[in-house]
Amino acid sequence: MEDTPALATPAPGVALKRTTITRRTLRDDDVRIGIEYCGICHSDIHQARGEWGKGNFPMVPGHEIAGVVREVGRSVTKFAVGDHVGVGCFVNSCGECEYCRRGEEQFCTRGVVPTYNGRDYDGETTQGGYSRMIVVKEHFVLRMPDELGLSVAAPLMCAGITTYSPLIHWNVGPGTHVAIVGMGGLGHVAVQIAHAMGAEVTVLSHTLNKKEDGVRLGADHYYATSDRTTFTRLEGRLDLILNTVSVNLDLDAHLRMLRVDGAMVNLGIPPEHDTFHASSLVPRRRSIAGSNVGGIPETQQMLDFCARHDITARIELIGADEVNDAWDRVVKSAVRYRF
Amino acid sequence: MEDTPALATPAPGVALKRTTITRRTLRDDDVRIGIEYCGICHSDIHQARGEWGKGNFPMVPGHEIAGVVREVGRSVTKFAVGDHVGVGCFVNSCGECEYCRRGEEQFCTRGVVPTYNGRDYDGETTQGGYSRMIVVKEHFVLRMPDELGLSVAAPLMCAGITTYSPLIHWNVGPGTHVAIVGMGGLGHVAVQIAHAMGAEVTVLSHTLNKKEDGVRLGADHYYATSDRTTFTRLEGRLDLILNTVSVNLDLDAHLRMLRVDGAMVNLGIPPEHDTFHASSLVPRRRSIAGSNVGGIPETQQMLDFCARHDITARIELIGADEVNDAWDRVVKSAVRYRF
Repeated sequence: MEDTPALATPAPGVALKRTTITRRTLRDDDVRIGIEYCGICHSDIHQARGEWGKGNFPMVPGHEIAGVVREVGRSVTKFAVGDHVGVGCFVNSCGECEYCRRGEEQFCTRGVVPTYNGRDYDGETTQGGYSRMIVVKEHFVLRMPDELGLSVAAPLMCAGITTYSPLIHWNVGPGTHVAIVGMGGLGHVAVQIAHAMGAEVTVLSHTLNKKEDGVRLGADHYYATSDRTTFTRLEGRLDLILNTVSVNLDLDAHLRMLRVDGAMVNLGIPPEHDTFHASSLVPRRRSIAGSNVGGIPETQQMLDFCARHDITARIELIGADEVNDAWDRVVKSAVRYRF
Repeated sequence: MEDTPALATPAPGVALKRTTITRRTLRDDDVRIGIEYCGICHSDIHQARGEWGKGNFPMVPGHEIAGVVREVGRSVTKFAVGDHVGVGCFVNSCGECEYCRRGEEQFCTRGVVPTYNGRDYDGETTQGGYSRMIVVKEHFVLRMPDELGLSVAAPLMCAGITTYSPLIHWNVGPGTHVAIVGMGGLGHVAVQIAHAMGAEVTVLSHTLNKKEDGVRLGADHYYATSDRTTFTRLEGRLDLILNTVSVNLDLDAHLRMLRVDGAMVNLGIPPEHDTFHASSLVPRRRSIAGSNVGGIPETQQMLDFCARHDITARIELIGADEVNDAWDRVVKSAVRYRF
């Protein structure tokens, strides 16, 4: 067992405080990682503020982890001390179910173990990346390509895979027209990935405030959804709408922008129920779907893809003492684009 | 031009009356069909009662047509006098758009011409199968396999293709578990088709009243949705839910029965908006979709499939004078299973 400094939320809604936590003794298949950077995901805030159920407190959030291998267990073969690595949204799964066997651990029938605010199969409460060091089973550690700086790659561990996975699953590539709803932490990465895949990319943002950035990152078109003509202009034009925002949208208006067989894929979970009329789906065989992170092999694929195409998060780098203020700005969408 | 007896609704909501209508002069690529049987589809009633917008009156409904070729135009090559044929939900499309070119005429960008209550591109008001004779462009006429009796095959022209198309599109076959919601005109055909495709088939009906029929037609399981334990029993078990009923269901309860990547496909359009919570979709990459009839090549494929597997509609055969009463029974779901 080894102690490490961390930032923890003592109780739901209370500000983060400096503390010390203990990581488990290195097992044969474990990797000890010195954490260099950890991204701030909106879900950190939801969980620390008790907005997604009770939660385990004190809670050390953080699942966009980038760091350097400091020690490896005896049977570890994939990593050596000094390697650049990443850890994403989960740190264990059963390894035996059909989904684990095919590398889609996110669907593990026993339930994946989240990187923090979870309980591992042996009862250990997991604590995340707002800390100096973490111990993770080798299988759930990703190799960070040399081309990617650790600070700008950290957010890829959640924002990257959450957008890459559905873009792959829904066959985005040359000849497809993808719209990204929301130009935030996920959206600004999605624009880059979809563009690198060869798709025609449209950003649908509430306003045109970030248009210049969007175009620079690869958007072919950038429209404001506060302007209702956007919806008529794009009627029947899109193959895929990737919705990165967690608020309840006018689904019918969005669905009407889809072509035959088009899909609107939601990555977030708004608090309220969504509504739609079946007439928005039936005549053109459209669908409304959801998607959530991706498996370990796909996450490695995503990192390698991002390295090849020079895709990283645009970040604002902060120190541990600034995280509470940063959270308030995330809630207000006042960051370009990831802390 | 040639006259033919027909049943027409003079004005929205008024009972059907015997009348005479005129069919167009046979064109070179037209087929004149003597109508032997025409199925009653719930959508006939919606349209004749003005429940789906204004409509063209007097209206001769009917788009589940089975008959015999009586005359062919000079350039017709696919059919000869005496052939058994069918006509489904549409009788013209542009023939040039990407969808028409790939045989998915239902998605024609110019808009398909419905078999009745539509206006053809030359301005002609279309009138349907509640009549003795119809003239249809060769491309939109289907060959009825010899194995299929015309009376029991007529409903396949709508109920058959509407269920066959999504079962094909969503890759139903051995190893997949399909639930059919509703054991009515569409549902009882869907059960047979899904079973013949090799799928495990579950019927989800409001009650168990038709269980014996369902099992006889190929259902492996038959559950009542009025029994809430049905939803927990099937949680995470289904690959596809084909929803044949046009009422607003508890979508979240249905979605939770789907496995990873499972889809709930709606064939009907309930009057009210549907609601769901994104948490029913996102974690397991599920989707809600819609589907509507199928193209001409797929309709022929469906008829050949049904002939091979001895699939027909279970019908109650009635005469022209009984149609008004039959409509009332369709509305009350008091027919087993198609008129």
